[in-house]
Amino acid sequence: MSNEIADAAAMKPKKSVALSGVPAGTTALCSVGRSGNDLHYRGYNILDFAEQAEFEEIAFLLVHERLPAAGELAAYKRKLKSLRGLPMNVRTVLENIPRTAHPMDVLRTGCAALGTVLPEDDEHTTEGACDIADRLMAAFGSMLLYWYHFARDGERIETETDDDSIGAHFLHLLHGRRPSAEWERAMHISLILYAEHEFNASTFTARVIAGTGSDMYSCITGAIGALRGPKHGGANEVAFDVQRRYSSADEAEADIRRRLANKEIIIGFGHPVYTIGDPRNQIIKKLAHDLCTDRDGHRLFEIAERIETVMWNEKKMFPNLDWFSAVSYHLMRIPTALFTPIFVISRTSGWSAHVIEQRQDGKIIRPSAVYVGPEPRPYVPLSQRR
Amino acid sequence: MSNEIADAAAMKPKKSVALSGVPAGTTALCSVGRSGNDLHYRGYNILDFAEQAEFEEIAFLLVHERLPAAGELAAYKRKLKSLRGLPMNVRTVLENIPRTAHPMDVLRTGCAALGTVLPEDDEHTTEGACDIADRLMAAFGSMLLYWYHFARDGERIETETDDDSIGAHFLHLLHGRRPSAEWERAMHISLILYAEHEFNASTFTARVIAGTGSDMYSCITGAIGALRGPKHGGANEVAFDVQRRYSSADEAEADIRRRLANKEIIIGFGHPVYTIGDPRNQIIKKLAHDLCTDRDGHRLFEIAERIETVMWNEKKMFPNLDWFSAVSYHLMRIPTALFTPIFVISRTSGWSAHVIEQRQDGKIIRPSAVYVGPEPRPYVPLSQRR
Repeated sequence: MSNEIADAAAMKPKKSVALSGVPAGTTALCSVGRSGNDLHYRGYNILDFAEQAEFEEIAFLLVHERLPAAGELAAYKRKLKSLRGLPMNVRTVLENIPRTAHPMDVLRTGCAALGTVLPEDDEHTTEGACDIADRLMAAFGSMLLYWYHFARDGERIETETDDDSIGAHFLHLLHGRRPSAEWERAMHISLILYAEHEFNASTFTARVIAGTGSDMYSCITGAIGALRGPKHGGANEVAFDVQRRYSSADEAEADIRRRLANKEIIIGFGHPVYTIGDPRNQIIKKLAHDLCTDRDGHRLFEIAERIETVMWNEKKMFPNLDWFSAVSYHLMRIPTALFTPIFVISRTSGWSAHVIEQRQDGKIIRPSAVYVGPEPRPYVPLSQRR
Repeated sequence: MSNEIADAAAMKPKKSVALSGVPAGTTALCSVGRSGNDLHYRGYNILDFAEQAEFEEIAFLLVHERLPAAGELAAYKRKLKSLRGLPMNVRTVLENIPRTAHPMDVLRTGCAALGTVLPEDDEHTTEGACDIADRLMAAFGSMLLYWYHFARDGERIETETDDDSIGAHFLHLLHGRRPSAEWERAMHISLILYAEHEFNASTFTARVIAGTGSDMYSCITGAIGALRGPKHGGANEVAFDVQRRYSSADEAEADIRRRLANKEIIIGFGHPVYTIGDPRNQIIKKLAHDLCTDRDGHRLFEIAERIETVMWNEKKMFPNLDWFSAVSYHLMRIPTALFTPIFVISRTSGWSAHVIEQRQDGKIIRPSAVYVGPEPRPYVPLSQRR
């Protein structure tokens, strides 16, 4: 495909997406596809920093509006470390969530509950909103894994570790030991790629809630609920369910061809905005490859890559970020049900920045609907009905 | 204003509202202002049934798609009665929410927690969604007032009463005794008026979440967060704060004129959609008047009515549903902080019906944004920054 055709196609409205291509507001946070299938956070091309930056740098950029200098980043990381603890009431709430619950519902409930214990001040200052954003990014891993270990083993884990980063903290609490430098770096890359994506459905949810003048916790709780859906964040879990069905790349290819012939939709491919490719794929794919250390890992990667090839050859569909994220997370021994919660930890940076932006915008978001229901009809009182 | 001008003005897009007048989907549930400032639920004019129908009839109409016959309504009310209990885990979660919490945050957390204990089936059948809608309408009053009494007095109240209606159940749990027939009727009217209003911000939130394929509890939890905002449901609390500032209608008029001269916004007036009047006002205003039984009540009503007159004469602004709802609730001795939660109980009918509709529609809702941020710029590595 030529670059010009690619550019024109990149932003074409999609029929399967309501409000596709319709601007619902302005943002300085993110641009998607201005020069093709590119992605910029506050003007920075994600390809430039995904491999060298730390997630905390990018969270600072999104929430606090600029890249931090070295001293600022160190102070920011100290702040985030100090926010890993959970209030007693929130721990009790988490202990009352059944083992069978979906981890996304745990974060939805934990976020809602934290908002009753440490509510946002009614003034809704930007400083206060940033503090809540930072606390949530620091504490979501704590919430999730406190519940995870308590629900499984009745163990009340200590969530306040001195790990250097949010990603390391997550892996440490999950596996009970500090992660390797490679895995910590992998978490930085993954969290950076998931941090922000303009008016996606969960971010838009957060902005619609913010538009009414509601508090930060309500915005983030709503966004978690939206991210949970399999057409959005939930896709990385479904993507892995697809990959693990197969024991070889050949078997995967044969089965995917069969499914495509039956018009089945393969989760992990295509995107509501991109039409020619997801710019994040090259980074996450390389990461997934780098994380392969044994025969099983390489086989999983080959299966994922083969399906990528088949989908492109047969349907001109490309993998989105979720596809090789699923591979990467599995290779770090993260249980499938915790994939989307990692997305939450990361995207809280983007969501929070959008809430702050929506507050500055000052508008309520309230579209209209096309009415397709019954014409006006008389009310028949109950006694005369049927 | 002539009717023709009124009709043209009724639906004019508003600058203070993002996506104003832009269709974000279709609905058969509700039409707003098709023939002026009218409101229809599934083709029925609310003016025709608000004074004679029961809320449960209208909830059935919205969630189950048609007005019930007498036997169906009786069975529906039995079903709702049977759903007033709260699982033990949810009660424990409620007991861990501080007394100082905002009651809307209690419902947000209670709804999120209930969804971990009695989650929606992954099949997402319409029947299952309707059952959750019914349970939430039946149990939100229980959640709210279980927390309310526990947080204040340490009392664990019994929430399973045999009151005939959702409104009576609410007043019974609040005041500790069955309400009068007049107050029960008043609750029916109020709940009917608040039940549904097309793509308002909280309903739209629920639909954006539903569009990702997420579960009912995530949709309703998000909607509660949106309704909380003072530009949306939270307005009825703020409206009462305005009214109770004054000890007489004359004092109110003088002060409101002063505030208008200072360009202050008076909450409870105007609407994101209606431009010439809120059709629900005539009903709720009559209700508020009927509820006045003593001198204090009449004085409150006169203050609210005088401000209505001043706002119309000075600004051509009309009261929305929240204005006289605030008067009505106060006259039934409902604490101000519980006003918006009543709105939740009612609007859960509309929200749920919209979630079901959005699922049938099958689209993800994903608008675009106008980018107003920095132009592409090079990433400066941390060590070289500043």
